[in-house]
Amino acid sequence: MFSGAQVSLYPMTSNFVPVILDAVKALDPHREQLRIETDDLSTLLVGPPEILFKAMHDLFVTAARSGEHVVLHVTVSRGCPGEPDAEICRPSVVLGERKPTSERISSAQAVIDSTAESNQHVSAQFSYYPLGENKEYMTEIYAAIDFIKNSGVFSKSKNFCTKLEGDAAKVFGTLGQVFLNFAPEQAHVTLDITVSANSPSTKK
Amino acid sequence: MFSGAQVSLYPMTSNFVPVILDAVKALDPHREQLRIETDDLSTLLVGPPEILFKAMHDLFVTAARSGEHVVLHVTVSRGCPGEPDAEICRPSVVLGERKPTSERISSAQAVIDSTAESNQHVSAQFSYYPLGENKEYMTEIYAAIDFIKNSGVFSKSKNFCTKLEGDAAKVFGTLGQVFLNFAPEQAHVTLDITVSANSPSTKK
Repeated sequence: MFSGAQVSLYPMTSNFVPVILDAVKALDPHREQLRIETDDLSTLLVGPPEILFKAMHDLFVTAARSGEHVVLHVTVSRGCPGEPDAEICRPSVVLGERKPTSERISSAQAVIDSTAESNQHVSAQFSYYPLGENKEYMTEIYAAIDFIKNSGVFSKSKNFCTKLEGDAAKVFGTLGQVFLNFAPEQAHVTLDITVSANSPSTKK
Repeated sequence: MFSGAQVSLYPMTSNFVPVILDAVKALDPHREQLRIETDDLSTLLVGPPEILFKAMHDLFVTAARSGEHVVLHVTVSRGCPGEPDAEICRPSVVLGERKPTSERISSAQAVIDSTAESNQHVSAQFSYYPLGENKEYMTEIYAAIDFIKNSGVFSKSKNFCTKLEGDAAKVFGTLGQVFLNFAPEQAHVTLDITVSANSPSTKK
């Protein structure tokens, strides 16, 4: 399974360059497990799903701790038929036989419950795209929404996406579980994710 | 057909609020043809596809003319089965019978060629998701890529997305043609789009 992400970080400050460069240092502990390429629009991370989500969390939380309004946009993808299978992408967990939806939801929830908080509040929204899944693809979307609604970080349904709110570790953890658990191992799945911190719109 | 977009504008400046508020005024001429709702993460535009892309272009070009590094992220969707059909979304062109791929490509190209430039250079990248299209969905993706490669704004293929570069009017026009022309009228299609201007990474 090929898995990776195109990641862009947007600090709403005239000092955006140092905020980005500081945040990128948070990727250092993960560099051995990732292939990283940057251009003017985004940074490509290629590696196992659990490392992708941990790396994105660490990058974003470091940027958010600058106190500036920061937004992260990510396109995460696995199983794209146009990409070669890659050794670097192998997940540490064996996915194995696909379990019934209820079991997948409870094991995903157990992972979220055991995740330590990072004490950084975030808002997020995401769209989930299980591709090439014929007419059943909406079933997978609804199963993922069922999981999300009970995950503790659900905020509201919006047109074309679902809004989350809560601790950064729980939000990224929940998105990581959606990415892995709601389509077969060989499926082509992408998530379009936006995460925001310190927005003046949310300050009362 | 229900069609709409979740739009977010990110000015990389400490004065991001006035840059956003000025840019939002560029939506005024389109307000009668759109339903608009805003929260802390994005602004929903609901309306016919050709107005959506014109409105996004006008919003972004106005922000880019501030001279600041600005990025627009958009999720555009049509035909989502979870959304009701809406009168406000009816396209001004009748899509009619689906034509062969080569005809769809040349009529899309004719629209781009007749579009006046806006004299604002942009970089962009997008992912195209034709959903529920069974195993044929990659065929539609490859047809869209064929069109893009000859559209005059193709920059390069990236993992999970395609990069565009050129005049803003041509780039938004090309994305609008991809949105309408490469899946049946009743299909569920989404585009994940990022557009950037004035990035210090592109200044030599």
